[in-house]
Amino acid sequence: MLKGIAASAGVAIAKVYKLEQPKVEIVKVDNIDAANEIAKFNEALEATKKDIEGIKERAAGKLSEEELAVFDAHLMMASDPDFASQIVAMIENDKVNAEFAADTVAKNTIAMFEAMDNDYFRERAADIKDVTHRLTAHLLGLIIPDLSAVDEDSVIVAHDLTPSDTAQLNEHAKGFATAIGGRTSHSAIMARSLEIPAVVGCAGVLEAANHGDLVILDAVAGEVFLNPDAETVALYEQKAKDFAEEREALKVLKTAKSVTVDGHEVELAGNIGTPKDVEGVLNNGGEGVGLYRTEFLYMNSDHFPTEDEQFEAYKEVLEGMNGKKVVVRTLDIGGDKKLPYFTFPEEMNPFLGYRAIRLCLDRTDIFRTQLRALIRASVYGKLCIMFPMIATINEFRQAKAIFLEEKENLIKEGVKVADNIEVGMMVEIPASAILADNFAKEADFFSIGTNDLVQYSMAADRMSEKVSYLYQPLNPSLLRLIKLTIDGAHSNGRWAGMCGEMAGDPYAVPVLLGLGLDEFSMSATSILPARKIVNSLSKKEMEELAAKALTLDTAEEVTELVKAALNK
Amino acid sequence: MLKGIAASAGVAIAKVYKLEQPKVEIVKVDNIDAANEIAKFNEALEATKKDIEGIKERAAGKLSEEELAVFDAHLMMASDPDFASQIVAMIENDKVNAEFAADTVAKNTIAMFEAMDNDYFRERAADIKDVTHRLTAHLLGLIIPDLSAVDEDSVIVAHDLTPSDTAQLNEHAKGFATAIGGRTSHSAIMARSLEIPAVVGCAGVLEAANHGDLVILDAVAGEVFLNPDAETVALYEQKAKDFAEEREALKVLKTAKSVTVDGHEVELAGNIGTPKDVEGVLNNGGEGVGLYRTEFLYMNSDHFPTEDEQFEAYKEVLEGMNGKKVVVRTLDIGGDKKLPYFTFPEEMNPFLGYRAIRLCLDRTDIFRTQLRALIRASVYGKLCIMFPMIATINEFRQAKAIFLEEKENLIKEGVKVADNIEVGMMVEIPASAILADNFAKEADFFSIGTNDLVQYSMAADRMSEKVSYLYQPLNPSLLRLIKLTIDGAHSNGRWAGMCGEMAGDPYAVPVLLGLGLDEFSMSATSILPARKIVNSLSKKEMEELAAKALTLDTAEEVTELVKAALNK
Repeated sequence: MLKGIAASAGVAIAKVYKLEQPKVEIVKVDNIDAANEIAKFNEALEATKKDIEGIKERAAGKLSEEELAVFDAHLMMASDPDFASQIVAMIENDKVNAEFAADTVAKNTIAMFEAMDNDYFRERAADIKDVTHRLTAHLLGLIIPDLSAVDEDSVIVAHDLTPSDTAQLNEHAKGFATAIGGRTSHSAIMARSLEIPAVVGCAGVLEAANHGDLVILDAVAGEVFLNPDAETVALYEQKAKDFAEEREALKVLKTAKSVTVDGHEVELAGNIGTPKDVEGVLNNGGEGVGLYRTEFLYMNSDHFPTEDEQFEAYKEVLEGMNGKKVVVRTLDIGGDKKLPYFTFPEEMNPFLGYRAIRLCLDRTDIFRTQLRALIRASVYGKLCIMFPMIATINEFRQAKAIFLEEKENLIKEGVKVADNIEVGMMVEIPASAILADNFAKEADFFSIGTNDLVQYSMAADRMSEKVSYLYQPLNPSLLRLIKLTIDGAHSNGRWAGMCGEMAGDPYAVPVLLGLGLDEFSMSATSILPARKIVNSLSKKEMEELAAKALTLDTAEEVTELVKAALNK
Repeated sequence: MLKGIAASAGVAIAKVYKLEQPKVEIVKVDNIDAANEIAKFNEALEATKKDIEGIKERAAGKLSEEELAVFDAHLMMASDPDFASQIVAMIENDKVNAEFAADTVAKNTIAMFEAMDNDYFRERAADIKDVTHRLTAHLLGLIIPDLSAVDEDSVIVAHDLTPSDTAQLNEHAKGFATAIGGRTSHSAIMARSLEIPAVVGCAGVLEAANHGDLVILDAVAGEVFLNPDAETVALYEQKAKDFAEEREALKVLKTAKSVTVDGHEVELAGNIGTPKDVEGVLNNGGEGVGLYRTEFLYMNSDHFPTEDEQFEAYKEVLEGMNGKKVVVRTLDIGGDKKLPYFTFPEEMNPFLGYRAIRLCLDRTDIFRTQLRALIRASVYGKLCIMFPMIATINEFRQAKAIFLEEKENLIKEGVKVADNIEVGMMVEIPASAILADNFAKEADFFSIGTNDLVQYSMAADRMSEKVSYLYQPLNPSLLRLIKLTIDGAHSNGRWAGMCGEMAGDPYAVPVLLGLGLDEFSMSATSILPARKIVNSLSKKEMEELAAKALTLDTAEEVTELVKAALNK
């Protein structure tokens, strides 16, 4: 049994599908039977072509035309008669094994292409590398994993899952276990969005698991059992059944209000990255979208998305939510989020650097395009816009002024725009939480971004293993910052939400309720469990709990306090 | 006239000494007169040896034996008959110019040495590079700058000054101007410590200034005048005189108390990096040392300093301060401060990473050695120990427990220790400022580190040019954090100090006084000007000023408020 972090609740029992690139080692063999070797080569080449065609087919509709074109280039290379005939000639003449011949021919061609100082040939060199990797793997009988081709129920075991890996997961992926990552890593967020169980940060799982092993994934306790005995399997089959029933039972809350036993109503909303995530929010009873991360529009593109491209995406989300509130965060790029078509300055500490609103106020051309697209889309629903990484009131004023200018411009151009767009801000920098009472005089609402707020308050990068112990959302200091933010909003008649991971944490929800948070935005699958908690609590009791939590010394004490209250 | 940042007040008028490595470009000349060229070569070689001997002589006493040994190695290389005879042979045989021959022989030898996989030969390769650079520069009539050899009054103009550059400054350096840096960069801090005027962040100064140009350095306004006319020189000669008189006049405050007109007394102390800085603090009327940065002990060493080495340094400072309070900060390494003999983990954001107390609590062997040395030294004066980068109460408790253990151990070993050592902490992470009332139940005192506190509160690295506008010590959000810290201390009967650059800022002092700060620790040369300000103000009026500042929106508004109060 291996321990990890439960990143997306659930229980899965299936076979291991190991996502690991095989190590292709080429050894030269002399005096080979050429005819036999050529037959082997032709077979491997056909298998390679079939692979690529299959991947292309399964990716169609999921990837852009441009991304699909890469597979055409690979197919063309695999079908290039010149490439094949050079390899065949070498096998015949030198009596060497096919993988050695293929590797040698490929290397020569790659060297030649790379020597030409030209983007086109450099791309062709990359194509040959990819095709040859696949071809030699076939010759050596090695398996190149392909998540989109998984055709029996599996638990994916990997070092980590990249965004493009998760895009390939199909209905046979019943869950996954990764060696690295935490509750807020990309793979964890994706698992919750896909509603499949996942255990992340499970050190050693890749080494311990073999392709085809039976595995139990307990993504409630954060445990992974490899090759369990029959008794354990039976036990976890029951647990999986119970979990599914419990989740089914939560469905009755889908249309229920989020209201405490003493009648205090809050809003439970969902976080989304793309228009297609809207469905998950609605299916899970979301009362709105509390965070639309627009950076994915930019990251999944090879150019700055045009005003029209953005308008279509925003319109789709607003229409999809059918009049329910949609909070759109303007471009939050920089830090660890880069764009292939934009050069960021070299910085020693990118998390403390040129990103989000800082970049947008510097490159107002980029910012204005997004604001125009948003304002144009505003007539299709209930739009709230918020600016990320606001540290000073001057920054908010500048951003708001640009918004007003573009709104005015559009009106002059005869474009219809909504007159009820709310313009608010993320509170994710300590300075803005501390000065929230003043900010609330200018911002229509706040949305607390706890991931960053915790990092900056503690001066600790949660991605840095050595200091990740300081990522403490329940530390009383953080609770005080949240209180300042909520109180600042309320004293000016504004609402305060939260769109960080904390908003869906069962131990945080009671305290946040007590602190007076109005809107909780989270991964879609967390909404119903959170509603169950809210609907079971008393606002008045939670106010007392929160008041007590604010006086405590440590995060551990707060956790104990909440546990005791929930078990009462 | 070029604008920069006034980093150390004063006015200097002198000739430019340009600190810039010459670009040595080697061009081959054929059919040269060999006899003449060999004479030239011998002359340059002698000059090279003389250079090295001079540098070594002037560095004696300032550098360690090991550092001085590098010059011996260089001298040996320059005197190596084999090296010289190869060059002479090439001039004679190939009839080429001396610099080309020297460069060719050197390159061959370097290649040979570097090919040997051996530390000894790699060091010899570095020696040859250095000697050949100097030798060819002499042959080409280029000047290799040497700050220690400056023998007429000069203003140093450089891209930046490194710690080893500033160590070489002698009495002829009347000031400096650098192209990069800010008020808190190393060179700025050194200028204040050396009490010479400096303008930093003066873009373009290196390109505009020529060696030997007359220059006026107005490090009050942050202006640099190159080749000024006679009228301007006369004007600034008067300003320099006035400034010197003013500084002289401040001397009467050396033994005065730091007390407001309505009788409120505060403590003005100095920041130091090494025991020899104690003299400057005392000469400037410092009432104590508010920050002893012990990391220099570690950075200026090639090994972790032993308990005895540290004990000697701490004892020297405590004795030097003669019973006045000395606040020693335990090792604050990591972030941008590295050690040559310690490997730090690769981190994406080192400012948010493994540093200071985080490292010390992980590597308690390093921490215990320092604490033992400090406790042993405690009998020689009034010692306060503080831990840097405390984010949680658990961290403070752990650090304090280790201190108590080592104190107990020393007592058991029969070592005499003081029984009045205060154990406090830096407040430089937002979380600890916000929870200061709870921290003050356990820490004997606070010292606010504004450089880091501003960076983390604003989530902005002040070294990153694009976001340095967010370094706003007078932002109301920062003032609120300072207030929380001071109030937290006072409500528990503790004292609160400040050891960041802000403590000596003329615009900050009035507000800090009003907020109730007890101790202001700054660069030694800022102490007397700060005392003059304190002694001219009313505590009661500053309390009103501070209360008003806390309600404002922006740093600009606070600055205006203070300016108006000071000009009243």
